[in-house]
Amino acid sequence: MGEKIVIIGGVAAGPKTACHAKRLMPDAEITIIDQDSLISYGGCGIPYYVSGDVSDEDELRKTSFHMTRNEDFFLRAKGVTVRTLTRAVAINRQEKTVAVEHVQSGDKDAVPYDKLVIATGSQPFVLPIPGADLDGVYTISDLHKAIDIKGRLATGKVGKAVVIGGGAIGLEMAEAFTDLWGVETSVVEFMPQLLPRIVDPWFATMLEKHMSAMGVQIHTGEGASEIVADENGRACKVVTPKRTIETDIVIMATGVRPRSQLASDAGLIVSPFGIVVNDRLQTSDPNIYAAGDCIEITHMVSGQKFMAPLGSLANREGRIVGDNLAGIATTYPGAMGSFIMKAFERCIGATGLSLESARAAGFDADAAITAPSDRAHFFPTEAKIPLQLVFDRRTRRVLGVQGFGPMNDAVLARIDAAAALIAKKGTIDDFSLCEMAYAPPFATALDALNTAANVADNMQMNRQRNVSIPDFMAWMDDFSSQPDWRALDIRHPSEVKPFKEKYGETWLEMVYDSVRANYRELPTDKTLIIICDAGTRSYEIQVFLDAMGIGNTLVLGGGFNVISRLEPEWWPAK
Amino acid sequence: MGEKIVIIGGVAAGPKTACHAKRLMPDAEITIIDQDSLISYGGCGIPYYVSGDVSDEDELRKTSFHMTRNEDFFLRAKGVTVRTLTRAVAINRQEKTVAVEHVQSGDKDAVPYDKLVIATGSQPFVLPIPGADLDGVYTISDLHKAIDIKGRLATGKVGKAVVIGGGAIGLEMAEAFTDLWGVETSVVEFMPQLLPRIVDPWFATMLEKHMSAMGVQIHTGEGASEIVADENGRACKVVTPKRTIETDIVIMATGVRPRSQLASDAGLIVSPFGIVVNDRLQTSDPNIYAAGDCIEITHMVSGQKFMAPLGSLANREGRIVGDNLAGIATTYPGAMGSFIMKAFERCIGATGLSLESARAAGFDADAAITAPSDRAHFFPTEAKIPLQLVFDRRTRRVLGVQGFGPMNDAVLARIDAAAALIAKKGTIDDFSLCEMAYAPPFATALDALNTAANVADNMQMNRQRNVSIPDFMAWMDDFSSQPDWRALDIRHPSEVKPFKEKYGETWLEMVYDSVRANYRELPTDKTLIIICDAGTRSYEIQVFLDAMGIGNTLVLGGGFNVISRLEPEWWPAK
Repeated sequence: MGEKIVIIGGVAAGPKTACHAKRLMPDAEITIIDQDSLISYGGCGIPYYVSGDVSDEDELRKTSFHMTRNEDFFLRAKGVTVRTLTRAVAINRQEKTVAVEHVQSGDKDAVPYDKLVIATGSQPFVLPIPGADLDGVYTISDLHKAIDIKGRLATGKVGKAVVIGGGAIGLEMAEAFTDLWGVETSVVEFMPQLLPRIVDPWFATMLEKHMSAMGVQIHTGEGASEIVADENGRACKVVTPKRTIETDIVIMATGVRPRSQLASDAGLIVSPFGIVVNDRLQTSDPNIYAAGDCIEITHMVSGQKFMAPLGSLANREGRIVGDNLAGIATTYPGAMGSFIMKAFERCIGATGLSLESARAAGFDADAAITAPSDRAHFFPTEAKIPLQLVFDRRTRRVLGVQGFGPMNDAVLARIDAAAALIAKKGTIDDFSLCEMAYAPPFATALDALNTAANVADNMQMNRQRNVSIPDFMAWMDDFSSQPDWRALDIRHPSEVKPFKEKYGETWLEMVYDSVRANYRELPTDKTLIIICDAGTRSYEIQVFLDAMGIGNTLVLGGGFNVISRLEPEWWPAK
Repeated sequence: MGEKIVIIGGVAAGPKTACHAKRLMPDAEITIIDQDSLISYGGCGIPYYVSGDVSDEDELRKTSFHMTRNEDFFLRAKGVTVRTLTRAVAINRQEKTVAVEHVQSGDKDAVPYDKLVIATGSQPFVLPIPGADLDGVYTISDLHKAIDIKGRLATGKVGKAVVIGGGAIGLEMAEAFTDLWGVETSVVEFMPQLLPRIVDPWFATMLEKHMSAMGVQIHTGEGASEIVADENGRACKVVTPKRTIETDIVIMATGVRPRSQLASDAGLIVSPFGIVVNDRLQTSDPNIYAAGDCIEITHMVSGQKFMAPLGSLANREGRIVGDNLAGIATTYPGAMGSFIMKAFERCIGATGLSLESARAAGFDADAAITAPSDRAHFFPTEAKIPLQLVFDRRTRRVLGVQGFGPMNDAVLARIDAAAALIAKKGTIDDFSLCEMAYAPPFATALDALNTAANVADNMQMNRQRNVSIPDFMAWMDDFSSQPDWRALDIRHPSEVKPFKEKYGETWLEMVYDSVRANYRELPTDKTLIIICDAGTRSYEIQVFLDAMGIGNTLVLGGGFNVISRLEPEWWPAK
């Protein structure tokens, strides 16, 4: 037999490494060790299993050709030995053995290796608050917990739920509870927005408004401070600084931490983001590789280290480790956290850095926000997809893209193309010229992503000056915050009318195609916030007014197509 | 006033140039000349107007904010003068004037320019066959013809239609006739496949089978040799070497040619592909630019010159000319013909080179074909999307991607991401690692595009050897063509059973997860064509058998998920 390869962890990176390595080295002796009885399941599918979209937990464990990925399958089909219910207790790097213990019998053993792969994943972070360990409080950490949750839902005794944490998993669980089970669900998020660090606040707000409209109670800027038990010791209330929410079940989805203790105990270099690896995914011991949620990742845009617990990355990394075990020197450039999420009838996606993250990382970053059509505006299924391109003013490099749209693959297409270009250090010009496939049922002649890049070009060349969305929203809430501002609404008079009636003198009207003739009527002692539906016409008017010597204007980027998704309550009844 | 800029052509590239240039140079005096009365319309929308998806032709002329793009609109909103019904007769480069003639009045005039832009587009190629000029024979060249066609359909007198030409426009028209109007429609295509040069034959066949199933009669490898008139002089029959098809209307969609005569007459350099321009889109006269369908394009992958008559490119090019007119030295890297098309309930897309085109261009090209899931296999809306990645064996550069899937944006997402990477000379490794956004409702953990790249990696590293699809299909049609071949079907016995019954000894059965135990039972004197659903398991088995010394195997790439879309009639009834 060939080399002995031992892999600790059997969910995503581990099995991928094992199978790819076995194909490259058919005579290698490969063993996966996992403390669980269930292995190689699609953990990202848990919310869809809970919702009922996926009827049986076994579906998450099956291949696309309907075989269940259990120990027997790995042995028969893949030639890989799996030892389940087996906990790796310690790594002895001198002897090159892993000390293991059977979870049920307590039997101990030492498994020898030539090469070791650590794929121990992540563990949920549990808030250190009173009641966090009560019955009825769940993390979404493994399939057993998911089965428990669904079992509890199926009893019909769950009328209310609280999700602690407004990240992707928390929100997917909130949708699952609300949409299929009709559970009255609340989300509490400590940070002032949903999806913190993933999207900018205005994209989080679009998501929040939609989820609220679909019936989820969302409380941002409000951490859970306590979980209260009923007389039976079951969680029945979640307390925040602002309120107490009654509940029948609590989902603790407050992030994960790398499971790196085993590596750390073995003297491997470990950071707060996970096990430190080189670009061949070797740890500080060249005979030990690591992959998946447990490793520290380099961000491809910022160059900073971070943690990226994504099943998609775990699989890529597993393949890279397999290559390197077989002597193929494939390298891993890092990741940038490409992200997409279904939320009822909408989806939200992002890749690269948000504006806030980009500025925090030291870029001279700005954001071009637009609200283009996802397909030809005359095509029946057309929808607006607010799309934001974050770029570096110094270098014109594109740093990130965010999108929000209907629940189909339109946003996905733009995020995927953006991720491809960002990985190759694409600039605004690359995005402007990127040859997105075009036909009216699928795109506009200049694709939404091209349009966003053209807006960025206009901004970077100092032809377009935007009002920031937070500033605009603050002003709409209280005009006295900027007493010298006036709205210059260039839409159709019928669209402008209710705003004029509601906001009076502050709301000026001059329809787009009349500005060239009538601009002299505009006040020159005010700052004009030019407003249209998508921001495009406003830019044209700004450029024209600049040429006419009226320079005190700002464009509302993305226009009312964005704002109406942020503050629907501002909308005067039509 | 500033510079005088004259633009000949008012459909796509012309208006885009005009508007962008005017924003960059507010004091420029910009005039568009067009011989038509209708300008700036979405010509790509014509099939959807004919089908009724777009109810009114005016929709194709409107902005997304519902203003009609006519002369008045351009003047009032854009500050651009448009002279419609005005034909440019000649360019006098010495005097820097364009001689024009009013189409109706015959009035002549000379329009002076400082900079000239030629955006004369393309004209339909009309087959030089008898009857091509009959009443009832239409090209899809402008909105007037579309209005005529729809008018004729609306009379209810069109029961049968023949489309000559199986390119995108012809097929879109065939769908429009069939789907909404219930017209009995035939397509005749001279080349042996639909979408010649755009996709490889097997992708064209998937499309053809679907369109046939939806009721379109398709005859490939059959050029129209004559159009016959009835007693009223109207087209009533289309004759091919193999048949005569009765019809009430004929659509001639046999490609377009650049409208470059005006440029040529003025002594500018012109090739068969169009007006020759440099990368700033300047013609051989530095005061004259050109953009849109009328220019010769450099293919970004092959480096060869070609014609790419696409509205998406015309708009990009217009912006680049605008930049350069204003002294911003934006360059145009060329194009690669990113393509997508709706066909009833399916869509087909491509970018870069097909396998055949890549080989013709001198690459050592090969194609990795797969049939991955577009989203998590356990997600209810999951579908298989046959996806092919064409790569260069010498350099690992990816040369092109093709996809076929359901009518949604799943294929679009992969084509767009591929186009982005191909533009940056992406390799198999870039595609393998491309960080496509992942969540179960949108993708698989390793995205379909990553999977295709991994297959290419396996092939380029000589770990995977495929049977070519044409060879496999020829063998299925006649086993005597390769008497030493045997199918090794590794799917579930219930799936294999009807094939075994139908094909007997030729069809061997050994279920995937039993091969490691039972491979010694396999014949070693035959070539085994390993067959599964997507090709993935077959690859695993090939690698295993190689290691066991059984090397005479070939994988059916993409498996039956591809073949079942190519030859549904082979399928034994289940």
